[in-house]
Amino acid sequence: MGMVGGGTGSFIGDVHRRASAIDGMIELVCGAFSSTAEKSIASGIALNLDKSRCYGTFNDMIQKERELPEDVRMDFVAIVTPNHMHFPPAKMALENGFHVVCDKPLTLTLDEAETLQKVIAKSGKLFALTHNYTGNSMVKQAKAMISKGELGTIRKIQAQYLQGWLSTSLEKTGQKQAAWRIDPKKSGIGGALGDIGTHAENLIEYITGLKIAEIAADLGTFGEGRILDDDGNMLIRMDNGAKGSISISQIALGEENNLAIRVYGTKGSLEWHQENPNKLITRWLKEPKKIFTPNGNGLHEEALNVSRIPAGHPEGYLEAFATIYKNFATHVLAINNGEIVDEPDYPTVDDGIRGMKFIYAAVESDSNNSAWTKIN
Amino acid sequence: MGMVGGGTGSFIGDVHRRASAIDGMIELVCGAFSSTAEKSIASGIALNLDKSRCYGTFNDMIQKERELPEDVRMDFVAIVTPNHMHFPPAKMALENGFHVVCDKPLTLTLDEAETLQKVIAKSGKLFALTHNYTGNSMVKQAKAMISKGELGTIRKIQAQYLQGWLSTSLEKTGQKQAAWRIDPKKSGIGGALGDIGTHAENLIEYITGLKIAEIAADLGTFGEGRILDDDGNMLIRMDNGAKGSISISQIALGEENNLAIRVYGTKGSLEWHQENPNKLITRWLKEPKKIFTPNGNGLHEEALNVSRIPAGHPEGYLEAFATIYKNFATHVLAINNGEIVDEPDYPTVDDGIRGMKFIYAAVESDSNNSAWTKIN
Amino acid sequence: MGMVGGGTGSFIGDVHRRASAIDGMIELVCGAFSSTAEKSIASGIALNLDKSRCYGTFNDMIQKERELPEDVRMDFVAIVTPNHMHFPPAKMALENGFHVVCDKPLTLTLDEAETLQKVIAKSGKLFALTHNYTGNSMVKQAKAMISKGELGTIRKIQAQYLQGWLSTSLEKTGQKQAAWRIDPKKSGIGGALGDIGTHAENLIEYITGLKIAEIAADLGTFGEGRILDDDGNMLIRMDNGAKGSISISQIALGEENNLAIRVYGTKGSLEWHQENPNKLITRWLKEPKKIFTPNGNGLHEEALNVSRIPAGHPEGYLEAFATIYKNFATHVLAINNGEIVDEPDYPTVDDGIRGMKFIYAAVESDSNNSAWTKIN
Amino acid sequence: MGMVGGGTGSFIGDVHRRASAIDGMIELVCGAFSSTAEKSIASGIALNLDKSRCYGTFNDMIQKERELPEDVRMDFVAIVTPNHMHFPPAKMALENGFHVVCDKPLTLTLDEAETLQKVIAKSGKLFALTHNYTGNSMVKQAKAMISKGELGTIRKIQAQYLQGWLSTSLEKTGQKQAAWRIDPKKSGIGGALGDIGTHAENLIEYITGLKIAEIAADLGTFGEGRILDDDGNMLIRMDNGAKGSISISQIALGEENNLAIRVYGTKGSLEWHQENPNKLITRWLKEPKKIFTPNGNGLHEEALNVSRIPAGHPEGYLEAFATIYKNFATHVLAINNGEIVDEPDYPTVDDGIRGMKFIYAAVESDSNNSAWTKIN
Repeated sequence: MGMVGGGTGSFIGDVHRRASAIDGMIELVCGAFSSTAEKSIASGIALNLDKSRCYGTFNDMIQKERELPEDVRMDFVAIVTPNHMHFPPAKMALENGFHVVCDKPLTLTLDEAETLQKVIAKSGKLFALTHNYTGNSMVKQAKAMISKGELGTIRKIQAQYLQGWLSTSLEKTGQKQAAWRIDPKKSGIGGALGDIGTHAENLIEYITGLKIAEIAADLGTFGEGRILDDDGNMLIRMDNGAKGSISISQIALGEENNLAIRVYGTKGSLEWHQENPNKLITRWLKEPKKIFTPNGNGLHEEALNVSRIPAGHPEGYLEAFATIYKNFATHVLAINNGEIVDEPDYPTVDDGIRGMKFIYAAVESDSNNSAWTKIN
Repeated sequence: MGMVGGGTGSFIGDVHRRASAIDGMIELVCGAFSSTAEKSIASGIALNLDKSRCYGTFNDMIQKERELPEDVRMDFVAIVTPNHMHFPPAKMALENGFHVVCDKPLTLTLDEAETLQKVIAKSGKLFALTHNYTGNSMVKQAKAMISKGELGTIRKIQAQYLQGWLSTSLEKTGQKQAAWRIDPKKSGIGGALGDIGTHAENLIEYITGLKIAEIAADLGTFGEGRILDDDGNMLIRMDNGAKGSISISQIALGEENNLAIRVYGTKGSLEWHQENPNKLITRWLKEPKKIFTPNGNGLHEEALNVSRIPAGHPEGYLEAFATIYKNFATHVLAINNGEIVDEPDYPTVDDGIRGMKFIYAAVESDSNNSAWTKIN
Repeated sequence: MGMVGGGTGSFIGDVHRRASAIDGMIELVCGAFSSTAEKSIASGIALNLDKSRCYGTFNDMIQKERELPEDVRMDFVAIVTPNHMHFPPAKMALENGFHVVCDKPLTLTLDEAETLQKVIAKSGKLFALTHNYTGNSMVKQAKAMISKGELGTIRKIQAQYLQGWLSTSLEKTGQKQAAWRIDPKKSGIGGALGDIGTHAENLIEYITGLKIAEIAADLGTFGEGRILDDDGNMLIRMDNGAKGSISISQIALGEENNLAIRVYGTKGSLEWHQENPNKLITRWLKEPKKIFTPNGNGLHEEALNVSRIPAGHPEGYLEAFATIYKNFATHVLAINNGEIVDEPDYPTVDDGIRGMKFIYAAVESDSNNSAWTKIN
Repeated sequence: MGMVGGGTGSFIGDVHRRASAIDGMIELVCGAFSSTAEKSIASGIALNLDKSRCYGTFNDMIQKERELPEDVRMDFVAIVTPNHMHFPPAKMALENGFHVVCDKPLTLTLDEAETLQKVIAKSGKLFALTHNYTGNSMVKQAKAMISKGELGTIRKIQAQYLQGWLSTSLEKTGQKQAAWRIDPKKSGIGGALGDIGTHAENLIEYITGLKIAEIAADLGTFGEGRILDDDGNMLIRMDNGAKGSISISQIALGEENNLAIRVYGTKGSLEWHQENPNKLITRWLKEPKKIFTPNGNGLHEEALNVSRIPAGHPEGYLEAFATIYKNFATHVLAINNGEIVDEPDYPTVDDGIRGMKFIYAAVESDSNNSAWTKIN
């Protein structure tokens, strides 16, 4: 694996490195970690990389790696930069024969996203988008239960992704994570929408197997001097007639990383909270509430497959993230061995396109005083 | 206390009887408990009332009680009938000199509600509406914290009231509670909106001290053959600029009585769940999460005042309900003693009017494809 | 009902009054509420009793009430005094033809307890001991599940009753509740043992249907200048070979009223926490954890019978306490009607004797450096 | 790192591999993974090791690695075998100049443990024992709070480690994990005592900084045909006069990995549950309950230092385990660089000796009908 972005001290670069390391399938072999060549190389050395493979720019990295022998060069590129720097390295890597893992949201603009979709198709290479929460064991169980019809027809969905870290003007203190996220040139047209809203949208569509058909959004920009949304309340209508709502915020003071979903069907319902991920609460017409746990009793294969440790040994954020990498790496290996994989289980460019359309529809609805707006 | 409605086997009649009995301040002395004289009298006898004060109709009760000596006759009427039968007995009782406690929502129609408001004003009598959840110790604490500015400016509010008991066509099985609630002639223009939505609306306005300025509602009618809403998702904008959402449902399968609220301010935030009411979760900018409990450490007087038992002894639904009765009875006693009470702490007709306007605005918004609709 | 003890401002007197009022079956008609005649009468008047039935002493009350016509005089006496004042009024009431409800622990000494048992037998009157936690819906469900064999053979039991209110020297501040509890003349040979330990012991035996056969106790007296235990850790062996432990404390700083039990069998296990009483957690060999709730799905009749309100409407401490009174009153009524009741469901003198033996065995074990000591 | 034990399919070998990989500081370079050379080598190859460094026995591995150039050979040995196979490879590795990471309990017998202690001292090499739960962020916070005096004098401690996986005769089904754990030749004189009891003991001593001075144990052997304990209830007295209890079980049906601890002091108290590790509950004399979370508000440096991800991103079992490896690797690097480390923060042979003495004292107490037995 070669990495673009994620220099020393970066939050998400470190996450990708740890998550990709857990299963012993992936090795970081090179990187272009920073916007300046100097920092980039220093970061690579600090990460114990061979100095010759610490590159100053992603262009450099992709070109040079391509020239290395096949069994030496990186197999894929992991892109962990701010949103505006997803498209350029992704496109170049794909066009130069490398698979790509990319952070979400997919790109800066919907145009870029649609272009990227074509680039991927043309390249024949693999592309994974790190909607990491879909890697949780209990999310797999939730999806499996719904797809097997155990909840009946879905009627109501509630999702929320609440954080409080932008409650104050953190971006004015020099905090880098905050600074680029509130900057439309780096984030795109969505603020919280892109950063966390797309996770909520993706989780809904992943778990239920339904699509959000239309949305009525009321976005908020509470932080002084901000341009992009830092809060949003949305009504949704699903393509099967189910209704629901999504609430997101980065000014929900005191909330840490409160992503949660509730899905109600005609036979059963379920509830999952990311902050306490080792618990899937299910409710039933005639039976008492049942609580599923990773590697615990009564799970479907889909959930059992992703657990690495026995029941009662809590799985965290990194493990779920690692599952995205593991499934991607498994696919890469299969491809390399000439095998065909029917339904690889990791988020792809299609999820990324959905996310971008969600952002665009929400912003459009909001600018039309929350009028219902289609996502197609 | 004389009761209208609440014959043997009724859910809410029993609740009112128990709640009014807990504090030893109120005695049930008469009633017109049912729509038929026979059942009504049988109910009264089963409740150990003096047979002469088991009345066939509320008209009869109000007239006959009025003729009794002042120290014998009932002090007030408790109305626990379906919505369409709130207005007639309330009006008559008030006009005959009796105070009134009435179940929510206030009346069948907004017109009735506004008429009733005038009748009350003219009568000079007291009127309490049983928005019982405001009687909870932790709700009092939440309101006190916000009114003292501890949370700063409120920015975001999320409320939900989720039940699942109408997930199936319960009304077709002869279940009376279900039957009248889905019938517009008895419920009014709101289904879940009136039954539980008004509780959510009232809780928001009670706790925050803010008013919902406008609403964008997407109501659902999932139960086969139903006319009224049995589900709803709503965006709200508060009169101070805060934004939020309300989700209600009676088809959220498996949910029992999941009323909950989250309020986020610029200094702190709070969260309360009715099903686990002895816990107020608060979050802060720099400090760890703090959990308040009834009669526990660090509470304001407003919360301490309503607890009857030491910390750790759980208070339930009936205790909160009883607090409405206790505060009302205290007010009645004060009035009877010629005392003036500055700010009686129980929901009044004004809360009832807000609830009716909320129902009407939500229905109007829904019929305009969720257009923002003012509540004034 | 006539009350002994529980003058204005008392904690437990108020609890008994509220709990007995909830179901509309019991009326407080007289009392001897305090150790001085003056305070006693003032308390009675404050409680709106007829002045002629506010007595200066319990002797007076029992004698005078006995002389009243049968349909006027109290049906039973409720004794809510400190431990040393349980036996005298109980004995006198029984010998004068009154049923008795008495607070726990049964008496000051085991001798008194055994004498009282004989007095009751001889009197033919009913006697209830307010081990109130056995009135909880989820405790009834737990007991029913075990007695029907759903958990298989019980192997392990853990109970705890943790409070922190005596962490500091509260008794030196003039706090009456603390003062008598640490005084052997008023409490007996057990401090926390009698006050809360007996609840834990009773809950274990009630839920499991087993008896504690022997105990190894290590008591602690942490409060400065105290004579009686304010903390204890105990090993227990049940009469069926199960093993377990009990931990009690009144110096567990910050704990409010943390009574909890876990029972493990060969087929299933269960867990219940008094502070969150509306939840029975059950675990199974092959199935996921199931959570039962009052009036919720999948309950046995024994649990359903005690709920007064629908699922999701939390039941609290007072409701459980009220169930003891309700079942007792039902028994009194049946007796008065000449009916026979097979298995009245409230704690009796036999439970009280078990509690006293538990206290005595624990104290004996502790004084023998925690040697195993039989409870027979 | 070279590994002894942990062949393909092993539970704990995989855990060590993942935990050591997370921080990018440690690479698995060789191993002797199984009791047969063939399986061992196959395991190594499956782990993508260089075939030349997949050894048939640990003797072979240690000898051959020693002959490799210093910059090539493994830095330390990780021992992840059943208990009886801890001592031989540990001793040999140390005597051949390798540092050692070893699974707990330390050894098969106390004699071995004491010998090993001397071997380590003589070797001058580092030795870490994987009491992994001490790596949790909230455990670090708990220890820091107590060591800084924030809880005052500790008075009461309750710990439990409850599992249910040996509720049935799993060892008779060919399950390897079960088979060796119930075999005294492989486990030693303690069953659950060694496997999980030592974790509870270590957690108590780590968090409180106190030592268990004496113990009164009642062990149980419920599984048919078992020789070793599969359950135990114990009273403890700490060296500062605090009292408490420990409950352990592997027949607590339905429990997954329920390690928990409560510590009560004169100023505050705390509670932590391994299954929900991202939460430290603290209670105070006058203030409400405060809940700490990893990387959340109000933490001490000691806790902040171990978090790899922002607050609200749950940390799991592997992260805590990884912290042991990270701190050990940091120490190895420092040593290699000739630096001195004052207080390395990972469990050592001294913790292992405490664990062995705990096992021996508990077994002795149990065989003396739970007589108090010193641990010195």
